[in-house]
Amino acid sequence: MRAGQLTGTCFTSRWAIAPSRCVALAPHELPAGFRAWGLAAGVKGGGELDVGLLVCDEPGCVSAARFCDSGVLAAPVVLCQTECDLTALRAVVANSGNANAATGAAGLEQARLVQVAAAARLGLDPRQVAVASTGVIGVPLPGKRIATAIARSAEAHRPAGSADFAAAIRTTDAIDKHVALSVELPSGRVRLCAQCKGAGMISPRFATMLCFVQTDAALSEETADLLTTVTVKRSFDRISVDGQLSTNDTVLLMASGASGVVVAPESEDELVFGEALDALMRELALRIVADGEGAKRIARVHVRGGDGEAVEAIARGVANSPLVKAALFGGDPNWGRIAQAIGGALPGTAPLPFDIAIEGIRVCSAGVGVAFDAAALAAAMLRDEVEYSVSLPGGGAETELFFSDLSFDYVKINAEYTT
Amino acid sequence: MRAGQLTGTCFTSRWAIAPSRCVALAPHELPAGFRAWGLAAGVKGGGELDVGLLVCDEPGCVSAARFCDSGVLAAPVVLCQTECDLTALRAVVANSGNANAATGAAGLEQARLVQVAAAARLGLDPRQVAVASTGVIGVPLPGKRIATAIARSAEAHRPAGSADFAAAIRTTDAIDKHVALSVELPSGRVRLCAQCKGAGMISPRFATMLCFVQTDAALSEETADLLTTVTVKRSFDRISVDGQLSTNDTVLLMASGASGVVVAPESEDELVFGEALDALMRELALRIVADGEGAKRIARVHVRGGDGEAVEAIARGVANSPLVKAALFGGDPNWGRIAQAIGGALPGTAPLPFDIAIEGIRVCSAGVGVAFDAAALAAAMLRDEVEYSVSLPGGGAETELFFSDLSFDYVKINAEYTT
Repeated sequence: MRAGQLTGTCFTSRWAIAPSRCVALAPHELPAGFRAWGLAAGVKGGGELDVGLLVCDEPGCVSAARFCDSGVLAAPVVLCQTECDLTALRAVVANSGNANAATGAAGLEQARLVQVAAAARLGLDPRQVAVASTGVIGVPLPGKRIATAIARSAEAHRPAGSADFAAAIRTTDAIDKHVALSVELPSGRVRLCAQCKGAGMISPRFATMLCFVQTDAALSEETADLLTTVTVKRSFDRISVDGQLSTNDTVLLMASGASGVVVAPESEDELVFGEALDALMRELALRIVADGEGAKRIARVHVRGGDGEAVEAIARGVANSPLVKAALFGGDPNWGRIAQAIGGALPGTAPLPFDIAIEGIRVCSAGVGVAFDAAALAAAMLRDEVEYSVSLPGGGAETELFFSDLSFDYVKINAEYTT
Repeated sequence: MRAGQLTGTCFTSRWAIAPSRCVALAPHELPAGFRAWGLAAGVKGGGELDVGLLVCDEPGCVSAARFCDSGVLAAPVVLCQTECDLTALRAVVANSGNANAATGAAGLEQARLVQVAAAARLGLDPRQVAVASTGVIGVPLPGKRIATAIARSAEAHRPAGSADFAAAIRTTDAIDKHVALSVELPSGRVRLCAQCKGAGMISPRFATMLCFVQTDAALSEETADLLTTVTVKRSFDRISVDGQLSTNDTVLLMASGASGVVVAPESEDELVFGEALDALMRELALRIVADGEGAKRIARVHVRGGDGEAVEAIARGVANSPLVKAALFGGDPNWGRIAQAIGGALPGTAPLPFDIAIEGIRVCSAGVGVAFDAAALAAAMLRDEVEYSVSLPGGGAETELFFSDLSFDYVKINAEYTT
């Protein structure tokens, strides 16, 4: 699951299973109708790529978007929500190195400068251009510098344009999150590609970190929105690196229709396309967790029984417990901390008769520790991916959450990030 | 605020102010009517003190108790709640090295064994003997071994009995949490003493970690309960090391009345006694935070404005953010993470016009970053105690929370604790 193991296949975790009708493409193979490139605009300094441009050449491009719901929304999120036609986006301009959050009216103005510059460069209406930012919060965005760089930029037209875009949106990411698939639908072959970033400040709710998805399938607005909603719920909504909701989370899906393959509502095409999109989103979400700042080991907590509120509270409680996460890092089979996190998640409910299993080894039954094979458990805890199962009596609710450990490097990265 | 600085005065933080009518005593000076000692019963192994006994010789002893509300309550908490007369406790038996939590009916039986053995040794009714445990969760408590050690124990009668009791309840504590005061009430002088433990799994709600308070003042049941409730709310309810509610939190106040000084309801005595108890509890709570596992630096977040729910959500959101805590450890004046934590605590409320100041230096006004003296802020962040102030518009709500940083040592301690 570590960065070095990601080559060879685009599905890297046992928790993201590739649908049978998908073939991985080289990530730079954008779906028909899309172009992308990256710029070094000096936001980060040091000549690194820090602004990405993505454009769809099909006037009929259909889009869908999701954003986080933080009480502190970044300027680009507000601009997208208020000044864009989110169902008919033609382009995205995204920068790293600066989140343009907690920047007020001036921040909104800077975001607008960037949007207008990109629209002019691409010959589009500004309402068709989404903006996204990621990086440090509370620092003014050099919008004019970005706008100038966009205006002067010649599209590279090189095959790596999509890879440059993907590179331009990275911050502390160490694992590549750029995937392209070819999907065999009953009505024909389409392409699906995504560029994604995220490693810290990860606890998306109702959306995700930055993730841009392109396809050359033809989708209606309703289908694009439905598929985005459903697949985000099963991917970016189910991960946590540090329980920290961002100010900038954005998912944008764009469908050019350039393949000529129409994905009609409730068709077999929709089913197959949805499966592929689901697998893609899940893979990228898992890569964010695997790339969780400083992460050595990742886990899935699966909770069933009780009701929807209880399983959600337990999953979040376990996944965000620094005690559970530090034990995961240490490969420490200290299941008592899982019991503690469960109890803390559901105050006032004692005695709570839950079961706990780690990698299938039952350690707690009806709230009470049971004898288990300690050597087998110790060995299981040393795997790259560890699975915790929690069962409550009754009910049919069920949920899962993927999370990373708490390591020395998480502390190091976050104690030294802006200094 | 670090361990080495605790000598000389019993009030160690700028946030815990000693009332003028209090004098610090040597911590072993128990109030009149109390005796304490410690045993090495082999729970921890290695001959360390791991069981503490505390007894009041006054038959009219009045007590009050508070416990956590986790969905996973440890056996000793359940036993206290179901099998003790919590307003007339005469003794406490507390062990470290084992939390006796997630141990089911067998755990309750082991706790009962210990309670009965202590009652027999002290010539009391078991209902007058409270039990408390702290340590690893999910491991059977060796109740019989503890009971045998109690039965065989001769009271040392040495002056350090209270210190031995305090030592016996420690786990990962590095800072001493054993304080004794002499308080000058209008009606006469009384003593107040407490032994406390706690360093990790600290996010008490409605109670605290283990804290035992003794006084030789005479209190009614109602006064004991009222003062305990009020002072716990201002101390142990307002701290977080890692946001993790324990299974074993317990506060017990015992008043022997042996001083002959009666603290009548709504009297000046009650006011002065309450102030002293409040300062004592707050000091101990701050010591828990200062002793937070691996902590190098501690902070207070003070939130005002809005309503009660909003200020509480923001205080918890900031205090439990691993990003804020890692920045505190690194002395990094990255206030954007405070803004992020505020937004995450109040989803769906954007734009939220909050102000942030760090050590009195305004960094954010109405949700927007402002210019500030970066050198002064950087210097302020390097203090042992750092104060964050957050203001929301309107309303009169106000709260505070004390918390520790997130350090390499927190990870080290918790990655290696049971292994």
